Amino acid sequence: MVPADSGAPAPPRVVILGGGFGGLYAAKELAHAPVHVTLIDRRNHHVFQPLLYQVATAGLSEPDIAAPIRHVLRHQSNTTVLLADVIAIDPARRTVRLAEGEEIGYDSLIVATGATHAYFGHDEWEPLAPGLKTIEDALLMRSKMLLAFETAEREPDPERRGRELTFAIVGGGPTGVELAGAIREIAQRTMTGDFRNFDPARTRVVLIDAGPRLLAAYPPDLSQRTREMLEQRGVEVITDALVTAIDTNGVTAGGKRIEAGTIFWAAGVKPSPLGRALGAPLDRTGRVLVEPDLTVPGHPDIFVVGDLAAMKSKGEWVPGVAQGAIQSGKHAARMIVRRLHGKPTEPFRFKDLGIMATIGRKAAVAVVGRRHFWGFPAWFLWLSIHIVWLIGFRNRLVVLLDWLWAYLRYQSSARVILTEPPAPAAPAEPAKSAEPALRG
Amino acid sequence: MVPADSGAPAPPRVVILGGGFGGLYAAKELAHAPVHVTLIDRRNHHVFQPLLYQVATAGLSEPDIAAPIRHVLRHQSNTTVLLADVIAIDPARRTVRLAEGEEIGYDSLIVATGATHAYFGHDEWEPLAPGLKTIEDALLMRSKMLLAFETAEREPDPERRGRELTFAIVGGGPTGVELAGAIREIAQRTMTGDFRNFDPARTRVVLIDAGPRLLAAYPPDLSQRTREMLEQRGVEVITDALVTAIDTNGVTAGGKRIEAGTIFWAAGVKPSPLGRALGAPLDRTGRVLVEPDLTVPGHPDIFVVGDLAAMKSKGEWVPGVAQGAIQSGKHAARMIVRRLHGKPTEPFRFKDLGIMATIGRKAAVAVVGRRHFWGFPAWFLWLSIHIVWLIGFRNRLVVLLDWLWAYLRYQSSARVILTEPPAPAAPAEPAKSAEPALRG
Repeated sequence: MVPADSGAPAPPRVVILGGGFGGLYAAKELAHAPVHVTLIDRRNHHVFQPLLYQVATAGLSEPDIAAPIRHVLRHQSNTTVLLADVIAIDPARRTVRLAEGEEIGYDSLIVATGATHAYFGHDEWEPLAPGLKTIEDALLMRSKMLLAFETAEREPDPERRGRELTFAIVGGGPTGVELAGAIREIAQRTMTGDFRNFDPARTRVVLIDAGPRLLAAYPPDLSQRTREMLEQRGVEVITDALVTAIDTNGVTAGGKRIEAGTIFWAAGVKPSPLGRALGAPLDRTGRVLVEPDLTVPGHPDIFVVGDLAAMKSKGEWVPGVAQGAIQSGKHAARMIVRRLHGKPTEPFRFKDLGIMATIGRKAAVAVVGRRHFWGFPAWFLWLSIHIVWLIGFRNRLVVLLDWLWAYLRYQSSARVILTEPPAPAAPAEPAKSAEPALRG
Repeated sequence: MVPADSGAPAPPRVVILGGGFGGLYAAKELAHAPVHVTLIDRRNHHVFQPLLYQVATAGLSEPDIAAPIRHVLRHQSNTTVLLADVIAIDPARRTVRLAEGEEIGYDSLIVATGATHAYFGHDEWEPLAPGLKTIEDALLMRSKMLLAFETAEREPDPERRGRELTFAIVGGGPTGVELAGAIREIAQRTMTGDFRNFDPARTRVVLIDAGPRLLAAYPPDLSQRTREMLEQRGVEVITDALVTAIDTNGVTAGGKRIEAGTIFWAAGVKPSPLGRALGAPLDRTGRVLVEPDLTVPGHPDIFVVGDLAAMKSKGEWVPGVAQGAIQSGKHAARMIVRRLHGKPTEPFRFKDLGIMATIGRKAAVAVVGRRHFWGFPAWFLWLSIHIVWLIGFRNRLVVLLDWLWAYLRYQSSARVILTEPPAPAAPAEPAKSAEPALRG
């Protein structure tokens, strides 16, 4: 807080919108800067996105991967965290407006409100095929997945039971691959013995992509490895199949009907509507086309970072991954500090630390520099990086133990169906975080 | 499952309604009996009720204290678990009807559907002052509690901020005492440093009871100790104060207005409506007046156990505690087996293992036999019993570690606000479990 009795001028006000990877790392970078930081998020928690699919598939509890933003930043005495909904930005008056009407002024603004699911003109599909961006989304997916097995146990008709035990996942990017692998695994390994009227190992998981290969952002050899590892585990992979219809009983993809009681959406994201509110130039998908230093053209006091920004580094587009959000958030914070010292801003340079996606126990794919990894080595790399990262994030050995314990025993600890699953975020809402980490 | 090709007659069918302590322990007792058991619950999970208040106050995650019923019973090959809503019982035809219309026949029935909150003719208070019976209730309480602090951080008006930081808890039984103690503790110890605009240690917690003392079922000296320990911790205790009005800004108790932004209800329970559906004699509160062997008068094939039953043991009413549910569930199961062997049923005998309630770290009260404990010894007893019990229940060392770790560091791991907290159960719904364990 600014001491009220201080004779010194008030420190410059930095307002950060969004507590995902971009906003949180921007705030952390400003911990010792002579500024007053206000971080505003509509949720009280930062989510460790790379493991969100584990909450959706009952492997982890939601507090394992979510921490109160204000708790993460509690030792930063120059930082205030507000739980609030920002509905407008006024660049001329340098204020943001909260849903409750209150206005908050800034000297520098960092917009890091991320992206949410995109249904490409089919918003009516959202209730039929929920996506995975928030903790609430993950709890809804978890309840839907577990309820399908419960319904199957009570269903005497074999055809309808088969449909209940079919999961269709739309989108073969990292989230789709991870969901497909995890659902097959829970069906085949965790549920064993729990049911009397069917064998959960016969659960069908169908992964559908409109393009010619899974993990389109990865090198083709790893796409092929991913397909092979998924198929070995019993996942049916359908490529070159555009989804044209979704209803409560199935999906039509590539002209073919797939009967499925549960459909999950992992096919695309769209940027937060706050980008449009800035009045800045946008790319075709709605991301803000930022300057090389990540400022908005014509508004050097406004930075856009993470998934909401169309950023270039050394002439190349920066991928929508967690590292992109983290590094761009830090960059924006550093540029604000440079300006305080009268120095000019510098262009953002993205350091590609690699991308990875996990398929299941002992199976993953990864690209680090020019090296490609797959199978057990890639999985071990994935596990090591996420363990180190998660420990740094939560500082809780217990999460690690919980996770390893469940892994070793093929048990899922979080198999609680909530009677009223939390409603998913409305389509127009900005999401809070960047795409899952270290992924392409 | 019954083998379809077996020439032997089908085994007797035992149907159990409810997967709380009563129903679950009845099912376990029948693991090796020559019967086919069907356990039906509207939720997929059994809840370890004695620690539900820890989920409500963000100390534990919900999967820490909840396990899928079918997973707990997966090794019982004679048992089928169904997730379904029982809406009617037909004692003449010996069937129960599910909400979906399906009917399930029984030879013996155990009704263990427990109790839910009672608002004593003021059902309009439920949305204003939610109670604590289910996991969904606990998540709603957690979100409400955490949101109050978030709102206070944004509230510039000192009077309104003071109201936001006041929690009124109606009902001085074990649940009310535990909630009051835990909320003071999280405010005073866990939240330290998280907020910029107020000191969370100044949070007011007001515990209100209509009677002359807290923990009315306990000996008066322990009621007095409880009051002293709570007041030492900063809880305001108001007794002899009947609540006559509740609105969004406070509560009127004993003719006095208390401004409070958050109100929780811990004042009473009412039995599941399935008791009435049996057409059996009920006591004044709606519990089924069972025979000494726990059967329904006139229906020797129907047992009622746990909180739904008004049971006598050696001429005394059995208290509505977890041990009463566990022991009566086991008794009903044993009587069914005795009948299979042509033996008569026996009267239920409740073995009082003691009652205990916790006030906070290193503070509790307990009655074991004729001995009274309070302070650290009672707390140590409480901790030891619950650790042993919980390990037996979940068989997960991790929960224990998680809990001890949080305890030692005064941290609460589960501080996630769900944007759309799960809706509380409707007033007329049967709850799934008995009252918190080892309590009076």
